[in-house]
Amino acid sequence: MVDQAMSGEIAVVDLLARKRDGGQLTGEEISYLIRGYHDGRVLDSQMAALLMAINWRGLSRSETSFLTQALVDSGRALDLRPVVPMAADKHSTGGVSDKTTLVVAPLVAACGLPVAKMAGRGLSFTGGTLDKLESFPGLRVELTESEFLHTLERVGLVIGGQSPDLAPAEGKLYALRNLTATVPNIGLIASSIMAKKLAAGAQVIVLDVKAGSGAFCKTESEAVDLARLMVEIGQSAGRQVAATISRMDQPLGRAVGNTLEVQEAIATLRGHGPEDVLELSLHLASQMILLSGLYADQAAASARLQRALEDSTALDKLAQMVEVQGGRSADVYHPENLASAPYVETLRAQRAGYVTAVDALKVGVACLTLGAGRTKKDQSIDHAAGIVLHAKRGSYVGVSDALAEIHCSDDRKLGRARELLEDAFAWGEEPPGEIALIASATVL
Amino acid sequence: MVDQAMSGEIAVVDLLARKRDGGQLTGEEISYLIRGYHDGRVLDSQMAALLMAINWRGLSRSETSFLTQALVDSGRALDLRPVVPMAADKHSTGGVSDKTTLVVAPLVAACGLPVAKMAGRGLSFTGGTLDKLESFPGLRVELTESEFLHTLERVGLVIGGQSPDLAPAEGKLYALRNLTATVPNIGLIASSIMAKKLAAGAQVIVLDVKAGSGAFCKTESEAVDLARLMVEIGQSAGRQVAATISRMDQPLGRAVGNTLEVQEAIATLRGHGPEDVLELSLHLASQMILLSGLYADQAAASARLQRALEDSTALDKLAQMVEVQGGRSADVYHPENLASAPYVETLRAQRAGYVTAVDALKVGVACLTLGAGRTKKDQSIDHAAGIVLHAKRGSYVGVSDALAEIHCSDDRKLGRARELLEDAFAWGEEPPGEIALIASATVL
Repeated sequence: MVDQAMSGEIAVVDLLARKRDGGQLTGEEISYLIRGYHDGRVLDSQMAALLMAINWRGLSRSETSFLTQALVDSGRALDLRPVVPMAADKHSTGGVSDKTTLVVAPLVAACGLPVAKMAGRGLSFTGGTLDKLESFPGLRVELTESEFLHTLERVGLVIGGQSPDLAPAEGKLYALRNLTATVPNIGLIASSIMAKKLAAGAQVIVLDVKAGSGAFCKTESEAVDLARLMVEIGQSAGRQVAATISRMDQPLGRAVGNTLEVQEAIATLRGHGPEDVLELSLHLASQMILLSGLYADQAAASARLQRALEDSTALDKLAQMVEVQGGRSADVYHPENLASAPYVETLRAQRAGYVTAVDALKVGVACLTLGAGRTKKDQSIDHAAGIVLHAKRGSYVGVSDALAEIHCSDDRKLGRARELLEDAFAWGEEPPGEIALIASATVL
Repeated sequence: MVDQAMSGEIAVVDLLARKRDGGQLTGEEISYLIRGYHDGRVLDSQMAALLMAINWRGLSRSETSFLTQALVDSGRALDLRPVVPMAADKHSTGGVSDKTTLVVAPLVAACGLPVAKMAGRGLSFTGGTLDKLESFPGLRVELTESEFLHTLERVGLVIGGQSPDLAPAEGKLYALRNLTATVPNIGLIASSIMAKKLAAGAQVIVLDVKAGSGAFCKTESEAVDLARLMVEIGQSAGRQVAATISRMDQPLGRAVGNTLEVQEAIATLRGHGPEDVLELSLHLASQMILLSGLYADQAAASARLQRALEDSTALDKLAQMVEVQGGRSADVYHPENLASAPYVETLRAQRAGYVTAVDALKVGVACLTLGAGRTKKDQSIDHAAGIVLHAKRGSYVGVSDALAEIHCSDDRKLGRARELLEDAFAWGEEPPGEIALIASATVL
């Protein structure tokens, strides 16, 4: 009764106190908090305290759905239907050298399912699709809404940056989470990802949730929990959603670094990429076209995808998109012409034996020191820098065999990167056991 | 190693993450955070997240001491030694109608131990000594440092507002805790109280930690924990500190409300106040003068205090302080002349029986609705408004006997206050068991 006599400001404190004490917030209350935060009535400090209380007490499934919807409702959602009857989107929770979007998106588009993806930039050891795409000279990823829709209509494929108009409170909240050490909560992560996906308008959403040392989810069971939560949020918002759990212990493929990864993605579309990149890409693409209902079953979907690779229509889709977004399609057909790093050093094995692990996080950090990634938002990066692995988990290596190539534009950075990279390799006398790349094929 | 490459801003995030994950902060780190918060390098949102993480994970004893010292070091500490060789201070953790400061401070000063107290204002159902003192027309509590020291030197007794120069980060942090629902943590409470006490310069500090329904600590064991922590902080800073645990289930004394409480405090100094007010006041005063080392033992201290009451020197001290701080000493000798409320209504019992409880919180809220307290900082209050209890725990009351008087300047407020007040009384057929007012005589 004291509180009733008090101002609206105090009502916010009451909601924070409820979450602090382990209680639940209603949809209306969450919506009030997010609206208030977006328009400034709820202070940064109050939202930060709420975020830490959520890290402490967690969010229920319904609270997570309400939060996601409140974030979507903070802006307007993109309507893709004026240009395509149905579109698909794909999201990975982030890892090292995950270039599958560059393979999956053109593949799916070539099978007749338009792909409209808003991607992110790399931060710390995790790469970002936008940075990879910018390895194509001239290509623009910061598209206006009409450019985004126009590219989607014309090519059936577009990959752009996240529009600040979509779920704007999500961006504000995400920045606050980074500043306040309140990132690692499953409900906050799920709602942050799904708010962007829901606002971006695709009907079909496939999620690639990474598990392993180089991912946010260290264990598969954490990844399954996150995947289930996101699928549930998406389905309760009326979308077709599925998720895959894939391993992120070692880098995906052999190339790590923006231009190097683009080249590897193109090689995969041409049928001579690394097996793991192909396997995961086909799996995710197949999930997308199955969810769309355009193909009757797995066999039909697989056959169609195989054809899109073989007849080069997937590669052509990528080339068209690059062209429409301001790049040169010739670079897709001749990726060897993309700018390369002036310094390439080979790291050689000091010993013989089996490689039992190539730590993704450590490789990612080595790339970061080469300038391939950024430690702060808005930092410029060196697209040509990176690492190409010659040995991966399970490889047998003799003394002096090549373990990796280090690509760099500044040879002063080589020494530190070499040390970090060397430390990423673990060794054994026996071949390590198999770990399936796709840990859990489908979470529905 | 990623973090090392990042900015100072990120270092703060690392500290927040450590506390979030249940780790400990060093003295240097806590000092860095408080300095940064005070000068704006650490954002409000970051401090709010830290505060919630502290509510979650707690503070160790050493962290609490470090935090207290960091808050003291955010400003300069007051040096009382130029005007008095030793001074005493007293702090209560807050309750309803606790007017003991107005009795204890003049009593102790009259025994030759100067008292320099910085007091607070009331908020919500809890009263504040400054508001009570302002019942004396003309009396000023917002004193400059030189006025504070001058009054202390001249009278041996001064009660003023907390100087914003002392432990300024404490004030900023306290405001943030109120906004962010991060108040109820024992380490934060202890460091907040003790930072102000240490900065205010007294060598002798006696703490009255309240336990019960009308106090922050609902149980005696919580109160003992808080008391121990504060005593430890004070002792490790080289002060003479002791604490008492006293019950705050029902209001202390009979008068609730500023002028009414001043009148009751003066009655106590004259030897005809309520027994509970006298008992607690003598106990706290005796702790203070024993800690000072000016009296050999409890018996000597008690005898001296008794004399200060009987020879009226304690009352004279209060009168001198009121005069030097701008009021009229005549009001101390004739408190019946202080402005009274135009409306006085008697609440009568609807039934006969024993009063088994008079809920302090409910009585406090009833007073709040009368205008005797404030719900927001800087709100003006009605000094004459309040309640005088005629029945307390253990009283036998017949039908239509007076339970309380309600004093009010606005008769429209009477109805609501009467309802709240009626609800504060609990009844039984048998007399309730005794509860000792002083639950734990001394915590050292």
